[in-house]
Amino acid sequence: MRVLILGGDGYLGWPTAMAFAAKGHEVTVVDNYLRRAIAMETDSEALIPTPNLQLRAEIFKAATGHEIDVVIGDCCDYDLLCDVVHSFQPETIIHYAEQPSAPYSMRDYRSARRTLDNNLSATFNVIWAVMEKAPSAHIIKLGTMGEYGTPNIDIEEGWIDIEHKGRKDRFLFPRQAGSLYHTTKVLDTDMLWFYVRTFGLQVTDLMQGPVYGLRTPEADVDPRLLPNFHYDDIFGTVVNRFLTQAVAGIPLTVYGKGGQTRGYLNLLDTLQCVELAMHNAPGAGQLRVLNQFTEQFSVNDLAATVQRVGNGMGLKVEIQTVDNPRKEAEEHYYNPAHSGLIELGLKPHYMTDPVVADMLETVLHHKDAIEPRRVLPRVRWKS
Amino acid sequence: MRVLILGGDGYLGWPTAMAFAAKGHEVTVVDNYLRRAIAMETDSEALIPTPNLQLRAEIFKAATGHEIDVVIGDCCDYDLLCDVVHSFQPETIIHYAEQPSAPYSMRDYRSARRTLDNNLSATFNVIWAVMEKAPSAHIIKLGTMGEYGTPNIDIEEGWIDIEHKGRKDRFLFPRQAGSLYHTTKVLDTDMLWFYVRTFGLQVTDLMQGPVYGLRTPEADVDPRLLPNFHYDDIFGTVVNRFLTQAVAGIPLTVYGKGGQTRGYLNLLDTLQCVELAMHNAPGAGQLRVLNQFTEQFSVNDLAATVQRVGNGMGLKVEIQTVDNPRKEAEEHYYNPAHSGLIELGLKPHYMTDPVVADMLETVLHHKDAIEPRRVLPRVRWKS
Repeated sequence: MRVLILGGDGYLGWPTAMAFAAKGHEVTVVDNYLRRAIAMETDSEALIPTPNLQLRAEIFKAATGHEIDVVIGDCCDYDLLCDVVHSFQPETIIHYAEQPSAPYSMRDYRSARRTLDNNLSATFNVIWAVMEKAPSAHIIKLGTMGEYGTPNIDIEEGWIDIEHKGRKDRFLFPRQAGSLYHTTKVLDTDMLWFYVRTFGLQVTDLMQGPVYGLRTPEADVDPRLLPNFHYDDIFGTVVNRFLTQAVAGIPLTVYGKGGQTRGYLNLLDTLQCVELAMHNAPGAGQLRVLNQFTEQFSVNDLAATVQRVGNGMGLKVEIQTVDNPRKEAEEHYYNPAHSGLIELGLKPHYMTDPVVADMLETVLHHKDAIEPRRVLPRVRWKS
Repeated sequence: MRVLILGGDGYLGWPTAMAFAAKGHEVTVVDNYLRRAIAMETDSEALIPTPNLQLRAEIFKAATGHEIDVVIGDCCDYDLLCDVVHSFQPETIIHYAEQPSAPYSMRDYRSARRTLDNNLSATFNVIWAVMEKAPSAHIIKLGTMGEYGTPNIDIEEGWIDIEHKGRKDRFLFPRQAGSLYHTTKVLDTDMLWFYVRTFGLQVTDLMQGPVYGLRTPEADVDPRLLPNFHYDDIFGTVVNRFLTQAVAGIPLTVYGKGGQTRGYLNLLDTLQCVELAMHNAPGAGQLRVLNQFTEQFSVNDLAATVQRVGNGMGLKVEIQTVDNPRKEAEEHYYNPAHSGLIELGLKPHYMTDPVVADMLETVLHHKDAIEPRRVLPRVRWKS
């Protein structure tokens, strides 16, 4: 299958490109290195340096024989995106090309504006490039569970049947996100759904929880092929922050009460989910929404896990509560459905102690490169 | 009160500016003439030429003694908007500064992109200029009833209480619009609601139906102060199209079955509603949503009214069904609530036969300027 991966330099994009190329698909990736640029501007570079995309594609080819075509360019440039879609004629487009940092989107006007412009414009261009150049292509859009926020009702997979005053209709599940970044994904979905129902595009929206993990079969071939690992407050997830703090001997920083609960998944399962979505296209005129995570943890759960596993490895892991830089519920109801991908065949990899220990080992290997100033929150939601 | 009107050159912006200045408020208007530019580009100029804003402000001052400050500039230019908000320190900001044409937004990539960029960027800049320069200002945002689409359940005023699997929460009412323009307003609302709940802004979102009417007490002072009247397929409403067709001796063109039902209101009531919203600010951290219309009609109802009144004036008005250029339900359930503005004190002006006759008289006065090629649909939703 011809697969176009937008945002191919990212934590998910690059492992996806390798995994799909290794399975014999024709893979083209597009990236403009926006994340790298923002990381440099905000003193938030990844822990482990990764070569540029062209170099990694070469390393990957030398090691495995599989090719990945690399286009360095901006998905906000419509002419460029149209050229790629027209010449490559992808059957599947995996759209990761968004500015993914919530704190960056809350930093100031400029960062918020850049997030809004980049994310909306890239998604809009993907929609139009498909309509104009490859109308039957299946767009797989990475959404986020964060679009739903933490409502007081069960979260369904994208849609909800509402009965109101004796009448019924079906709507997108209400979304109410906790950062401007997450809100841009809400807007993306509104926009995609408009063009899907009006012009018959086929779209899968994968509402993904935070992803952890550094291993994939292809990344394990050469350390230069590792996915990027961000532990900073801009791009780092809570899992990566805790792993890094455990290794660096800094107490794990729990924001507020630590009852913030989210659905998490292993990077290996992201790859499975995207592949399952690709092989089970929803059909023209369908916006299929799947909630993409395998198990849910509170921040306190994660801290306890990292502490237990770290102490078992001889680290001395402490936990500390800090003032929450975000505006979010610190204790809340959370019960999201996530059966769709299991029904398509997903076999979950859970966050077992050996999995956590393995991640800690990788971080330990790069302990000297940790810059502690990057770990604590530098952006606050409160005005 | 200090009132900043964004989009002050528009059909609603200019009459609002005059009405508020006449009541003794300090009024500044901002406009970049985007509508005039698009009208020229698409051969869709208004029926009655209107002088530019500076000239109209002069004419208005000479006739009434009231001042309107005019700033020609683009709300997408953040520095400009910040300067205006900072120096004028508005207590109320009325945000009309959006590209308001559904057909234009469905024309091609460039028009759609321009609509998305302008509307999102202007709204985003208004939010940030308020946060940074006048955080207690009340933003009155013109939304549209079109954001809701035509759901099979009763439409509430902005919010809905959902009971789902034994639990309850309150959400923005589901929105599912019929054009990209209307969808940009959905996105605006999502964005406003995010910043309202996160940073305590105060916003009123007026979900307005199509507005008709050419008379306001201030516009009646001098014909050069008339609101603009668009009868073209780009900016014209169905009411204006029917009035123009009746006068020009062209059959009234009903799109499809004509059961498309919407809530309408008189321009005089828009002025009342905006004023009522201004004098009853919702308070910090509130997004108040009010459905702004006074009575609902189907397209067939409107055609019958214009035919009846036109024939009574000696016109020979015929009605013709044409293929629907839009993708929309032509027969549907429609029961939107609209009690909020009545409770605030709105006294409706209904679409009586004399009101229709009066509009027909105005159009008759400019009959020779009608360009019939502008009336029929030049943009189709179908790909």
